[in-house]
Amino acid sequence: MLAEIREQPAAIRRLLEHEDAVREVAARLTWSPPPVVRMVAHGTSDNAATYGVYAFGLLPGWTALRDSISLTVYYDAEIDIAGQPVIGLSQSGVTPDVVRYVERARSRGAVTIAITNDETSPLAEVAELVLPLEAGPERAVAATKTYVSSLAALALLAGHAAGRGAEIADGLRATADLVQQTIEDLEAIVARMAPSFAILGRMFVIGRGTELATAREIALKLQETCRVAAEALSATDLSHGPVAAVDPLFPVWAIATEDANLPAVVDSARRAHEAGATLIASGSAAARIEGAAFRLPTPPAPSTLLAPLVSVVPGQLFARALAIAKGYDPDSPQHLSKVTRVL
Amino acid sequence: MLAEIREQPAAIRRLLEHEDAVREVAARLTWSPPPVVRMVAHGTSDNAATYGVYAFGLLPGWTALRDSISLTVYYDAEIDIAGQPVIGLSQSGVTPDVVRYVERARSRGAVTIAITNDETSPLAEVAELVLPLEAGPERAVAATKTYVSSLAALALLAGHAAGRGAEIADGLRATADLVQQTIEDLEAIVARMAPSFAILGRMFVIGRGTELATAREIALKLQETCRVAAEALSATDLSHGPVAAVDPLFPVWAIATEDANLPAVVDSARRAHEAGATLIASGSAAARIEGAAFRLPTPPAPSTLLAPLVSVVPGQLFARALAIAKGYDPDSPQHLSKVTRVL
Repeated sequence: MLAEIREQPAAIRRLLEHEDAVREVAARLTWSPPPVVRMVAHGTSDNAATYGVYAFGLLPGWTALRDSISLTVYYDAEIDIAGQPVIGLSQSGVTPDVVRYVERARSRGAVTIAITNDETSPLAEVAELVLPLEAGPERAVAATKTYVSSLAALALLAGHAAGRGAEIADGLRATADLVQQTIEDLEAIVARMAPSFAILGRMFVIGRGTELATAREIALKLQETCRVAAEALSATDLSHGPVAAVDPLFPVWAIATEDANLPAVVDSARRAHEAGATLIASGSAAARIEGAAFRLPTPPAPSTLLAPLVSVVPGQLFARALAIAKGYDPDSPQHLSKVTRVL
Repeated sequence: MLAEIREQPAAIRRLLEHEDAVREVAARLTWSPPPVVRMVAHGTSDNAATYGVYAFGLLPGWTALRDSISLTVYYDAEIDIAGQPVIGLSQSGVTPDVVRYVERARSRGAVTIAITNDETSPLAEVAELVLPLEAGPERAVAATKTYVSSLAALALLAGHAAGRGAEIADGLRATADLVQQTIEDLEAIVARMAPSFAILGRMFVIGRGTELATAREIALKLQETCRVAAEALSATDLSHGPVAAVDPLFPVWAIATEDANLPAVVDSARRAHEAGATLIASGSAAARIEGAAFRLPTPPAPSTLLAPLVSVVPGQLFARALAIAKGYDPDSPQHLSKVTRVL
């Protein structure tokens, strides 16, 4: 897992070598009125899809949604998607119901795209178009580098769809350097901090805007590798009920990035702190979270949209370090295998 | 809270008295090509919006999504929504960012609809059209009757949009009786079962399809009233990572309804049980969850779409009973007020 966390800057740079493929897919999607982009995925790839909603919304101004697989694959709902883009995301390209969704969508005339780390996978086969992640083999069960590669692929696709591909590519190159710097800055700090959380059983992870994807991904890493009941919430949703559950043994991790959603995160963290929660703050605006017991600052990204590629790193490093502090093997969590073949 | 749980059948019947208002709103939305319905809400109302995705998908075959408030209200994304329906859901009608979202959407030409229990609220004022829940005052902080009323309003609206309003209204009348029967059947059983969970600190609640909304709502009730780290997951997502966290002190509640998504729920519950989780099974197919330590069966609903109005009842009753078993006041959870006025 650590080796793959460290490979992330290289994975982002490698994706940029395949920019032509991304440009071609974007050209297929650009028409008027704008398309409605449907994304389907599970687990880490679904967290990347959460990011995709913002990438398409902020760059070309398109509506994008994480579609319900159960609604169409299992209930067979008759929703007309002819000519509309459908993106299936799966690191392995094997996830059965994602493959079935994309297959069904293609038979109904959707423009189907696979974002996958295996160009020979079933998902790549059933989709009309493929955006290969080219992140290299990922062996740790908890995905890391394919997550940031998926974000990079979505940002680049949305950027080209908006006629701003070159700008986003430049931003991603700078972001790769920031990811590298963040890993170097935080690796030792996180290893020293993790033992304080060895008894951690539950946690909320809050973010807002583009960082909702980061909150979801950090919570998932903690569930997978540390057996923690970590739930991701939008900062505002924390105040609409779940804050009732917090106490000093139920910490809250706030992802604080300098953007228009920061006031909501600061406010929500303040409420959690008043309710007795121990706070961890990460991100480029970690210093803005008052009363944080621990801070994991990251450098500011070139834009709000690219911040999540950097912001996820403290969570990845912390999850690995905490797994070790708890005596678990971060590379091979219990009850999981790398490729999930469930219904 | 208990009084309001018991009022739910009456709340559903009262909503049906206002069917004309629902029919008029539906008439405003029916055109070709079909609209894309955007819903915005927090907390319990957002769980109702989760249900709305299925109601609009299954009945008129429309795309419906829970929109990101942060994307447009805070990032000011330029997504064209002129002429498209926007539904803001809020029991109190006060939720600040929902009001702001609807206000902005209306100024950009969207057809705005408020679903609220207060016709004089800010949300009702900023929206062009209002669907009043008429559920009567809700005083317990944890919402119950306004949740089932919101589901009924969405089902009825989607039904009229599909030209099947009368059928759905009949189904809702039958469902009100089933909700009443479920409350009568389970109230005492749940009270006897709750003390076994007095030390409960964390739980996953799984459902799929229309019952994903139920899973989210039951998890939220447990967070609000019992201070439990209860996270809702689609049955399939449990297997994509979070199952790594379960053990006998980390139970899994499976909502099992007789429909096309049941096999995925059965399979996911089996995996959780094999991983050592104590299982609670509820719903019309509770008997199908192998190895469940506790079962809270409900009568079958008239259709897959109406099942969630019945399926949520065991969770509401259990949350209240568990709060009492833990020594908490279910009517007034800590750190919460009835009307949440956060950013």
